[in-house]
Amino acid sequence: MADNRIIIEGSGRHIHLSQTDLEALFGTGFELVAKKYLSQPGEFASESRVDVVGPKGTIQGVGILGPTRAQTQVELSYTDARILGINAPIRESGNLAGSAPCALVGPAGKVDLAEGAIIAKRHIHFTPEDAEKFGVVDKEIVQVITDGDRALIFDEVVVRVSPKYATYMHVDYDEINAAALFGEVTGIVKKK
Amino acid sequence: MADNRIIIEGSGRHIHLSQTDLEALFGTGFELVAKKYLSQPGEFASESRVDVVGPKGTIQGVGILGPTRAQTQVELSYTDARILGINAPIRESGNLAGSAPCALVGPAGKVDLAEGAIIAKRHIHFTPEDAEKFGVVDKEIVQVITDGDRALIFDEVVVRVSPKYATYMHVDYDEINAAALFGEVTGIVKKK
Repeated sequence: MADNRIIIEGSGRHIHLSQTDLEALFGTGFELVAKKYLSQPGEFASESRVDVVGPKGTIQGVGILGPTRAQTQVELSYTDARILGINAPIRESGNLAGSAPCALVGPAGKVDLAEGAIIAKRHIHFTPEDAEKFGVVDKEIVQVITDGDRALIFDEVVVRVSPKYATYMHVDYDEINAAALFGEVTGIVKKK
Repeated sequence: MADNRIIIEGSGRHIHLSQTDLEALFGTGFELVAKKYLSQPGEFASESRVDVVGPKGTIQGVGILGPTRAQTQVELSYTDARILGINAPIRESGNLAGSAPCALVGPAGKVDLAEGAIIAKRHIHFTPEDAEKFGVVDKEIVQVITDGDRALIFDEVVVRVSPKYATYMHVDYDEINAAALFGEVTGIVKKK
């Protein structure tokens, strides 16, 4: 990356499951099979899908990402949350205390989540090397400038730095649509 | 309005019909009945709804706004356009040449539109008095700053000035969701 540009990726709705919830939904000893590896090293889209159920509606066939995590996390857009009828808050990944309840229905069973449904706060994964190059640090809030017919400047973008990451910005599809960021797109990182 | 703040309103998907298309869909001599008057003087949500049909899907019961216009115009979000399977372009209202085709199905008939489906370019309606106060002119492109968890700065916001308008910014629901602009919200107009 020559200047301070990063690649912007859209994250569709998806689920991270705990091993316990995975087995409750798919059966004892079930393991996720990678269908496609994602931009973040080791993360993959699996073959497995479940239905997400809320008080007002169901979204069928939501993809499960692997590997499993400590706590089940359902990442939605506001569009999705409205279909389900739940009040999912904007949160960073893993910050699930008091997030929205919903139910998951798989081929072997149902899991009622008391919390776990969130709308992901827009963020950039940085390698430590890129973070240094961009002059940003973990947890810093930056802006990202886009262009085109629906040009906008994302504010409240959280920087996350880890040697486990690859450098990519993640937004959801409401944000992709609002900024008309289709295909291979980049944005310019701007310190506040 | 003390400072340079404007009210931001979300526009859901809706249709403006020509009198010819209105009668083709609802029957000869049909007239729209106002259910709710909108922020722009004289504009109203009617009781009437039609289905919008594209090659990949249908959106049922899309509301028709009144009064009728010279040309039928279907205003969608990218989320909607993807459901229908059409390539609706970002356009200013009324600029329909070469916009996307779709079909409308009403109780009395069907209308095949060769063009007319657009995704509205984000814009601000200004009264001439407010435009002067804000120091902006018709067709000017400005930015609008929002705040909150999903704060962002909308760029490419078109200013439209007319004595027929009331001063409001209009964005679609992808943009409302992307900026988490729920309830009564305002933004700050910034000249570029």
